[in-house]
Amino acid sequence: MEIFKDIKGIRDFVKRERQAGRRVGLVPTMGYLHQGHLSLVKIALESADTVVMSIFVNPLQFGIGEDYEEYPRDLTRDAELAASAGVAAIFAPTVAEMYPKGYASYVEVEQLTEGLCGASRPGHFRGVTTVVSKLFNIVQPDVAVFGQKDAQQAAVIQRMVRDLNMPLEIVVAPIVRESDGLAMSSRNVYLNDEQRRAGLVLSKSLGMARERIAAGERDAVKLRQAMVDFIKSEPLADIDYVEVVSRESLKPLEELAGPILIALAVRFGNTRLIDNAVVEV
Amino acid sequence: MEIFKDIKGIRDFVKRERQAGRRVGLVPTMGYLHQGHLSLVKIALESADTVVMSIFVNPLQFGIGEDYEEYPRDLTRDAELAASAGVAAIFAPTVAEMYPKGYASYVEVEQLTEGLCGASRPGHFRGVTTVVSKLFNIVQPDVAVFGQKDAQQAAVIQRMVRDLNMPLEIVVAPIVRESDGLAMSSRNVYLNDEQRRAGLVLSKSLGMARERIAAGERDAVKLRQAMVDFIKSEPLADIDYVEVVSRESLKPLEELAGPILIALAVRFGNTRLIDNAVVEV
Repeated sequence: MEIFKDIKGIRDFVKRERQAGRRVGLVPTMGYLHQGHLSLVKIALESADTVVMSIFVNPLQFGIGEDYEEYPRDLTRDAELAASAGVAAIFAPTVAEMYPKGYASYVEVEQLTEGLCGASRPGHFRGVTTVVSKLFNIVQPDVAVFGQKDAQQAAVIQRMVRDLNMPLEIVVAPIVRESDGLAMSSRNVYLNDEQRRAGLVLSKSLGMARERIAAGERDAVKLRQAMVDFIKSEPLADIDYVEVVSRESLKPLEELAGPILIALAVRFGNTRLIDNAVVEV
Repeated sequence: MEIFKDIKGIRDFVKRERQAGRRVGLVPTMGYLHQGHLSLVKIALESADTVVMSIFVNPLQFGIGEDYEEYPRDLTRDAELAASAGVAAIFAPTVAEMYPKGYASYVEVEQLTEGLCGASRPGHFRGVTTVVSKLFNIVQPDVAVFGQKDAQQAAVIQRMVRDLNMPLEIVVAPIVRESDGLAMSSRNVYLNDEQRRAGLVLSKSLGMARERIAAGERDAVKLRQAMVDFIKSEPLADIDYVEVVSRESLKPLEELAGPILIALAVRFGNTRLIDNAVVEV
């Protein structure tokens, strides 16, 4: 496996792969890899011959007071995990390589970015869509794989690709969970033992929501309230949002119908965790 | 020459050209072609084997009260002119093809878009960079050619391509003028005889500025004022802006040094004309 820090290096690598007739897949990450990331690689290898992984903690998608500085980084360990998962090349640029002096261009998706994480993290998705656009233009992959864990991000990127006619396919891969149900996240390392245990309330509340829908609940407001009450029963949980939205528009629902997204963000101490479930009602 | 109204059609055309080993050039236009546009085709043919011209009056780059509805259109005549200039295919999409229901994604360049035309046409460049990004993604050209007539647009697109790592080359082609000096523009058809004659004050004021710089003028404020006074001597001319800026940053200068851009926008009746000159001081 090769590791490139510069744009020219990864471009030359991809060019060689493409000239050899190979289909190229991209898995964009912020590193500190876990099984969730590696599942994206596995899925990318199903529809590409060569998988490039980008590892870049993108300052543009962190707000003031967020954890950009503390975000965990370990390129040595990431490289071992990526190589063992079948990644052919890592692109791990510096901030200066991605945003040189005078940088002034941004990609933005409106509407879908207004609620959920967009409401509590202003500018976050603008940072995501900008860096992802750059990565797409640098690597020019045939397919890129994103995780459903970041449900809003996946929806926003799918909309961006469709709207701006970006010439690639987007695959969204299912959430990977620890054996007890906690969704995998690089941020889970921030949790102490008590918070780690308390964090289970997220997947449990989603499970409860699924059960209620299966039992006939069609009132989105009631469902949401039941989840809020359930999460509040955990004293360490500090709710950022719990929302029941249309999977297509990401707009809050009153009545449960069609494919819906149940999404939540909850703080445990300084650590903000997200989780979600898609349910076909 | 082929004419495509849909994205799939032009994509398939370009794919065939590329598979045949041909280098593809793009000339984006809003149609109502004149010799200026045809000079872009000629320049595109110098570095591409196959030239695609897009013809699309982009509603996103027109403000409220601007001339979107009245903008002159004549696809039949355009097709004849394009074919005779060597264009291989025209891409002339409908508005619905470019901006389907639910459209929500935009590309934006900051800083460079704040002054000059950006100041009097808010949202204009966001419309330009968005549509140009879409055209680049649809056609995936090796090279695209823009006119220096729209100096700020050319600078903004060059910055966008560099910032977002778009994988193509941008060529900026010189202004083409009528024999009396008026810069060619599709909007010149709006002018009545009196306005047409008065419009010469633009190129003349740029000529005067060049002469003063050649004679040793280095005070940008004085130079600008002399141009303003000169243009105001023409009663039909209503100045939008006259600016002397750095060619690199497009920021106003006090002292003339380095490559400078002298840019102006002046109304004659309801018609707003622009012109500019680049001078190496």
